[in-house]
Amino acid sequence: MFKPPLRILMGPGPSDVYPQVLTALGQPTIGHLDPSFIVLMEEVKDLLRYALQTKNPLTFPISGPGSAGMECCIVNLVEPGDKVVVMINGVFGARMAELVKRVGGKLIPIQETWGRPNDPQKLEKIFKKHSDIKLTCMVHAETSTGVLSDIRALAKISRAHDALVLVDAVTSLAGNELRVDEWGIDALYSGTQKCLSCVPGLSPVTFNEKAMQKIKKRKTPVPSWFFDLNLIMDYWQADEGARSYHHTAPVNSIYALHTALCLLKKEGLENSWRRHQENHDYLKTHLEKRGIAFLVAEKARLPQLNAVLIPAAYDDQRTRAILLEKYHLEIGAGLGELAGKIWRVGLMGHSCNKENIDILLYALAGIV
Amino acid sequence: MFKPPLRILMGPGPSDVYPQVLTALGQPTIGHLDPSFIVLMEEVKDLLRYALQTKNPLTFPISGPGSAGMECCIVNLVEPGDKVVVMINGVFGARMAELVKRVGGKLIPIQETWGRPNDPQKLEKIFKKHSDIKLTCMVHAETSTGVLSDIRALAKISRAHDALVLVDAVTSLAGNELRVDEWGIDALYSGTQKCLSCVPGLSPVTFNEKAMQKIKKRKTPVPSWFFDLNLIMDYWQADEGARSYHHTAPVNSIYALHTALCLLKKEGLENSWRRHQENHDYLKTHLEKRGIAFLVAEKARLPQLNAVLIPAAYDDQRTRAILLEKYHLEIGAGLGELAGKIWRVGLMGHSCNKENIDILLYALAGIV
Repeated sequence: MFKPPLRILMGPGPSDVYPQVLTALGQPTIGHLDPSFIVLMEEVKDLLRYALQTKNPLTFPISGPGSAGMECCIVNLVEPGDKVVVMINGVFGARMAELVKRVGGKLIPIQETWGRPNDPQKLEKIFKKHSDIKLTCMVHAETSTGVLSDIRALAKISRAHDALVLVDAVTSLAGNELRVDEWGIDALYSGTQKCLSCVPGLSPVTFNEKAMQKIKKRKTPVPSWFFDLNLIMDYWQADEGARSYHHTAPVNSIYALHTALCLLKKEGLENSWRRHQENHDYLKTHLEKRGIAFLVAEKARLPQLNAVLIPAAYDDQRTRAILLEKYHLEIGAGLGELAGKIWRVGLMGHSCNKENIDILLYALAGIV
Repeated sequence: MFKPPLRILMGPGPSDVYPQVLTALGQPTIGHLDPSFIVLMEEVKDLLRYALQTKNPLTFPISGPGSAGMECCIVNLVEPGDKVVVMINGVFGARMAELVKRVGGKLIPIQETWGRPNDPQKLEKIFKKHSDIKLTCMVHAETSTGVLSDIRALAKISRAHDALVLVDAVTSLAGNELRVDEWGIDALYSGTQKCLSCVPGLSPVTFNEKAMQKIKKRKTPVPSWFFDLNLIMDYWQADEGARSYHHTAPVNSIYALHTALCLLKKEGLENSWRRHQENHDYLKTHLEKRGIAFLVAEKARLPQLNAVLIPAAYDDQRTRAILLEKYHLEIGAGLGELAGKIWRVGLMGHSCNKENIDILLYALAGIV
């Protein structure tokens, strides 16, 4: 059997998984139509509604990682010819844009400098220039750059122009304030391996009634079978006893998600947001003492994903290799245009604590 | 934490997961780009090549269940306007046909009575009637009906007419003789939760050079980002050190798959095929003694999925409920047009042993 090496996961995700979640994961598998599994599914849906602050009935985990959740949302919500705005300030916005094109949407991109938040004024301008925009897509916490965008403000603009709002909350769930109903988010996908500290492989999604109506009224079939919500709903959403088979749910991963969500509820959602912020403040104070600077302006920084400029004294690859081999610490490299320029230091979920930060600071001091 | 009830899984899958596989699953999560995870990925690919009897370099698990593997194969291999033959003798053939239509393929269906194997003569006729068929799709072990089709014969016909061969081996892998290279299969997807007795959530796939060329020479982009093999290959197939991020792999599920494949290799592939056949023979002998008949003619029966006609003395739902509640035994209901008419008794992987069969026979005797 594979024995994974000792690691402290302080990269862009996965984060260290809670021991209780690993224990739940390893429980014996039961059938995906077993009556007791169906009870568990209902609990998972309720717990997700709490984590996302929504009352949407259609709230459940897609059987695939965050990018599967992204694809599920876009293939269902976008029809060929639909005008779709995608706000791009990093890798994940760019990925949404690519997907919109692949499903035949008319892409209206709003480019932002990497490292900056998506700009409400640019969104306002786009709505003045274009009519009949059907959907606006935006990333809440851009994992490639460590930037938080103001979803509440962006969603408000989009809704004022009758466009649906789709949010990528892969990294923000449980790490940043996020209120689906209050902020007017129509559809959202997330991930389990970031601030929830569950194993990778599931993508929680939620859709409100407006989003569901858009999907139900499509003129063309969803160009996917695996992601077709009309079909998936018959499994996740049907009345007791009437559930029909769509695909075999990843039973054990759902045990794990259930436990991770119970731990979040026990801590309290706002306490979890606060813990991420407090540990970020601690890291920031100590990095600044050493003259290590952040890529992102202070007010748009993600507490759980710290994009720091690699100091001249450090070699990127060598430093990350020493951290991993000698200190068992994983931090993340830069992606795309930021490769070689930044490190991404994750403080997510179970990994987000002062002890880990102290080890990182000690290790970094020992390398130069 | 959710404590699953005691179950013996003798339905259409998932099967009982090997305890060693559950232990592997619950090991601490490491990063999906960790050097030691990359070593594990290479071992998994090698073990899958053994399990599938292929030398194809592109052999790896898709991060989703069997239906995700199906979708991955079809969205990559079918371009709009391509003539595609789909042989339909149950739920899963019908699903492939639906997918071919959704991606714009020109579907040429070959319908077969449910409960019968796909017919080589019908395939020959179709090739006489149509020219320029690009792809033939067929299910090896049809889980909805318990039927085995002769893939070797079907693939030979398809190749003689220069059409690629795509095989659904979700239920057959490790349960029936299956030789990808020798039989001339160009692309194949499978599942982990059937005769491998691993957890659900991954779909092993393999593509040979001809299939890869078809994908590389596409005139239109793959209408999916998550399933685009051109992108996935940069993660699963790149040289050491050059792997690039596509999506976060389900790290723990891959630990589990690795262990399940090691157990298969230890048992020996042909021994595994033989064990499934021998236990089926044992079940058959005892069912026949009680006058319980099979849906499928003897020579096309799947040893690992026994579709039996529900005897008049038994009420379908009540019997399955008693088996589950009193004897902790899960057996499968009929699907689609076979609902209420058959039971599907699985003898897959770790669930495939005489002790389980004896419990089932004892329990069935106690119900009427």
